[in-house]
Amino acid sequence: MTDLKTRILGLVAADLTAIESELNRHLSPHLPLVGEVAGHILFSGGKRLRPLLLVLGARLCGYRGDYATTFSVSLEYLHAATLLHDDLVDGSQVRRGKTVAHHIYGPATAVLVGDFLLARALSLAAGTGNIEIIRVVAGITENMSQGEIHQLTRKGDLSLTEDEYRQVIWRKTAVLFEGACQVAALLAGAPANQVAALASYGANLGMAFQMADDLMDYLSDSRELGKTAGADLREGKLTLPVIAALKAAPAKDRQRMAAIIGNPEFTPDDLRDLVGLLARHDGLRYTREKAEDHIRTAKAALEAFAPSDTLDILRDLADYTLSRRA
Amino acid sequence: MTDLKTRILGLVAADLTAIESELNRHLSPHLPLVGEVAGHILFSGGKRLRPLLLVLGARLCGYRGDYATTFSVSLEYLHAATLLHDDLVDGSQVRRGKTVAHHIYGPATAVLVGDFLLARALSLAAGTGNIEIIRVVAGITENMSQGEIHQLTRKGDLSLTEDEYRQVIWRKTAVLFEGACQVAALLAGAPANQVAALASYGANLGMAFQMADDLMDYLSDSRELGKTAGADLREGKLTLPVIAALKAAPAKDRQRMAAIIGNPEFTPDDLRDLVGLLARHDGLRYTREKAEDHIRTAKAALEAFAPSDTLDILRDLADYTLSRRA
Repeated sequence: MTDLKTRILGLVAADLTAIESELNRHLSPHLPLVGEVAGHILFSGGKRLRPLLLVLGARLCGYRGDYATTFSVSLEYLHAATLLHDDLVDGSQVRRGKTVAHHIYGPATAVLVGDFLLARALSLAAGTGNIEIIRVVAGITENMSQGEIHQLTRKGDLSLTEDEYRQVIWRKTAVLFEGACQVAALLAGAPANQVAALASYGANLGMAFQMADDLMDYLSDSRELGKTAGADLREGKLTLPVIAALKAAPAKDRQRMAAIIGNPEFTPDDLRDLVGLLARHDGLRYTREKAEDHIRTAKAALEAFAPSDTLDILRDLADYTLSRRA
Repeated sequence: MTDLKTRILGLVAADLTAIESELNRHLSPHLPLVGEVAGHILFSGGKRLRPLLLVLGARLCGYRGDYATTFSVSLEYLHAATLLHDDLVDGSQVRRGKTVAHHIYGPATAVLVGDFLLARALSLAAGTGNIEIIRVVAGITENMSQGEIHQLTRKGDLSLTEDEYRQVIWRKTAVLFEGACQVAALLAGAPANQVAALASYGANLGMAFQMADDLMDYLSDSRELGKTAGADLREGKLTLPVIAALKAAPAKDRQRMAAIIGNPEFTPDDLRDLVGLLARHDGLRYTREKAEDHIRTAKAALEAFAPSDTLDILRDLADYTLSRRA
């Protein structure tokens, strides 16, 4: 990552600095509590992956105006809003190694500051007057909320299929990656085939990113991920490693897995057992392969563009999405 | 009201029917749970005051297109979204005589369905392509969330001033009334002075409406209001009747009021005492007068328009806002 990071900064350091400053500036005229709570989630070491995609995508398509910053801030506010609400909905304790906002400021504040960030995201978009992009941003918001509702309604349900899982993670994660790329291409006035290609790159990157995340949840210790391994399971979220292993396992192992998954009080030993079963029945390998498929598709989509430094970086960023695991 | 209702229906019954049907239609392609929870709040006997203002305002300004329905649905979704979240934030039990959504479906669902309705509201607005109105809708959303945050941060604080109270109720209530009227005039392409006049009518109506609501909270029994008297107090909300009475009362009565307000376990006798003190120190009369001032201002704003049946109805609707008390 260090090398990639250096190359990224060589190309778009000024854009990323402008985004940090604007993320802060658009909060400051508001109530102090808003700035504090929003800041807690916005400035907690997130990787700014969505702004990065937007800025790199805009550059790839030859856009040089200021709206890449505006929409980066809009999408990052949208992202922060969903994190605030999702942590509350999931009953999460920790994100990126920090206590979640609703434990510090209370659930009421987390709900309302999330609403404010959502509103601010759409207001910033509306301010640009670019109706096509405003529609994209509104559509992202709608999809994300539906993805979260879908996930919530299927909590703990062992019959969740891979197709449903894909629909959920597309909505809750990939749509925002896809949207960042789409906004970038639309800002540049890129031809339709390039808008579609960049959107496909983003969507596939997002799918791979979420699958890698879901894999890491079973493989990482708390230091790496900033949260405890098995967090998804604790929240009743069935992810691809489990879905695939449940499908492949013989009845006896499936029953053992179901028993662990169904027990909200599972022990570290149970979790170790489960990870062993996920490995034995190829849930981990299967998930990794599917994520790799998406990365291949993402990189193939980039072939719609002429070679450039920016293109190389986007390609390497795709590979990095999976190597995060190590 | 019966007579006014008949006249309103004589004028815009078809519009209101279209709105009911669209409110339902825009939910139906989504997850069943969304429709159920959103329906719980949307079809629970609300008066559709905001759509009514929009439809009547559009008619007053001579607009005859379909977007009055679209924006009515958008603003009603926005309103429903804030009710879902506010009931959760306030820890309310009952709204319009029905158990609140978060008690039936759980807080997580209330948060996410609220988010969905918010997103749907902005998506519907974005779909029209009318950038000026999209900005109004986004601005309303932003103001409403800030009003709620402001209210939350000052919960139970006896030093809340009338100015601050006004700012809070403008944001949490009047902005949406103002916005509905503004949208109506903008749709019709009305001249700037009429846009401003109709917006002022809506804003003042909204202020009066909220003041009347805050007054009723101390005067109604649960049957009338669909909630228990003293609900605001129970939620730590200081409203104008209390603010005004606290200011006017001598030290001894102020202390007695402060003691009741500060006690979350206040008894029916305490509440009766408090209402007596609010009356004695003119908190009730003062609030009613301020609401009446706003109604006068609202009606004066209507003078920018030529006489018509619609204008008469808007004028009578303003008076009705206060007579609701009876």
